[in-house]
Amino acid sequence: MTKARTLQPPLAIVAGGGTLPFAVAEAAERGGRDVVLFPIRGAADPERVTAYQHHWIGVGQVGRLRRLAWNAGCREMVLIGSVVRPAIREVLFDTDGLKLVWRVVQVFRGGDNRVLSALLQHLEDNGFKIRGAHEIAPEIVVGVGRLGSRAPGAIEQAEIVRALGVLEANSPFDVGQAAVVAGDQVIAIEGPEGTDAMLARVAEMRRNGRLRTAAGVLVKAPKAGQDRRVDLPSIGPKTIKGAAEAGLAGIAVLAGSSIVAEPDRFAGDADRAGIFVVGVRPDGSSE
Amino acid sequence: MTKARTLQPPLAIVAGGGTLPFAVAEAAERGGRDVVLFPIRGAADPERVTAYQHHWIGVGQVGRLRRLAWNAGCREMVLIGSVVRPAIREVLFDTDGLKLVWRVVQVFRGGDNRVLSALLQHLEDNGFKIRGAHEIAPEIVVGVGRLGSRAPGAIEQAEIVRALGVLEANSPFDVGQAAVVAGDQVIAIEGPEGTDAMLARVAEMRRNGRLRTAAGVLVKAPKAGQDRRVDLPSIGPKTIKGAAEAGLAGIAVLAGSSIVAEPDRFAGDADRAGIFVVGVRPDGSSE
Repeated sequence: MTKARTLQPPLAIVAGGGTLPFAVAEAAERGGRDVVLFPIRGAADPERVTAYQHHWIGVGQVGRLRRLAWNAGCREMVLIGSVVRPAIREVLFDTDGLKLVWRVVQVFRGGDNRVLSALLQHLEDNGFKIRGAHEIAPEIVVGVGRLGSRAPGAIEQAEIVRALGVLEANSPFDVGQAAVVAGDQVIAIEGPEGTDAMLARVAEMRRNGRLRTAAGVLVKAPKAGQDRRVDLPSIGPKTIKGAAEAGLAGIAVLAGSSIVAEPDRFAGDADRAGIFVVGVRPDGSSE
Repeated sequence: MTKARTLQPPLAIVAGGGTLPFAVAEAAERGGRDVVLFPIRGAADPERVTAYQHHWIGVGQVGRLRRLAWNAGCREMVLIGSVVRPAIREVLFDTDGLKLVWRVVQVFRGGDNRVLSALLQHLEDNGFKIRGAHEIAPEIVVGVGRLGSRAPGAIEQAEIVRALGVLEANSPFDVGQAAVVAGDQVIAIEGPEGTDAMLARVAEMRRNGRLRTAAGVLVKAPKAGQDRRVDLPSIGPKTIKGAAEAGLAGIAVLAGSSIVAEPDRFAGDADRAGIFVVGVRPDGSSE
């Protein structure tokens, strides 16, 4: 592919864990744009970052991020990937970081949207425009319809609708970006533990006899008021593995507001695991 | 205490785990009524049942329960205590049990209210009146106000109100008899895993850094449409232990609709653990 370099300034990508940061980096480069990665220590994949110009940062080093990104000529920034919040004693804070000390420890994920907003505001106050990963790499956005060859049946369809209802009911409380429903039973609602831990819980309930209903679905959708630039629901290989181990029939995500790195590869993984994956409208439909 | 035996037929108590069945048995006897215990194998305390006339039953042995209780002259029945649903291959079914095979495996707890209703209906069709434990032993019902010496402060009060809101929002989905809130963050909503497992999850989130907010509260309230004769929210020594290990400040339950075995002893345990326990009105108040 020819890379038509433009006069656009390079894009700063603050990279957490998983493959999404690299999907965004590749998409930006395909679009002819240079990228500078800011991999987060303890989260980003050390192997894959070596393919890019990059500067490691710690969770508390907001000032370092700001200065390095500015000096590299970046004026736009994407924050993408998973970050498990470290213990505060393990965080190395710089001056900017200290200002945000009670805030940055909760960056990226977890219930408090307002904390994340404060960080984004701080970066914008310093001249950066925060862009959503889906704006840079629209190919990672899940559309309406199935991703692999499997599709939900009538039972799964009803489970999807029920799960969307649960997520909507919980949304005002800033909780529940994901839920598991089997039959008409709500099995789990995701809290700060994250999707992988929630799926492990469902698998455990199957083992210990708390859950007897067959199959079931995992459904993910953004919470109300969630900043879609930085916290879109995402699915990946771990989600398929977790769903399969939890004995689920499939995964549904809200189309247009959920992201997946390498959709084709993901679809193949889902088929091999015998799991359907589908992007749905707010009413649960996907036809 | 004098026991004034009446002409009331003996009370059948189907006994799951924990101390609640014995609190009910003692209350009935104090009221001058004979009791016959039907301890559930694998759930009820084998030591404590020896103090009563009793017949062990398996989860699948609905016919055995019905016949033995009837022959003992019982016409009223209380179902009380915790039962972890066994794997279906471990259940020994009799004829009645087989009829209810897909139903009884979910007896007592877990999301499906209608399944429990089917069992109760079956017993009532066979001439038994199902009584609530709280009718027999009103002393186990938590009233408005604190149980120990500690009371919630302003922050905990706001957390209680928020948790009650979450439980109410989830109630139509037959999920969430309990929730944990810390600050304005909803940490966990209880599914079929039960309160103890949910509290263990919160403790784990504290250890792994997913949860940084200090303290927090556990709140329990009945779900809408829950049959209050057999599935009232209950708290006990394990709840205090779990809440303390999860770093919570206290426990609130809906007054009048939640039960605790041996309230005085429980209050002492709570004080020693440094945990408040309070019965609240639907609006969260307890003054």
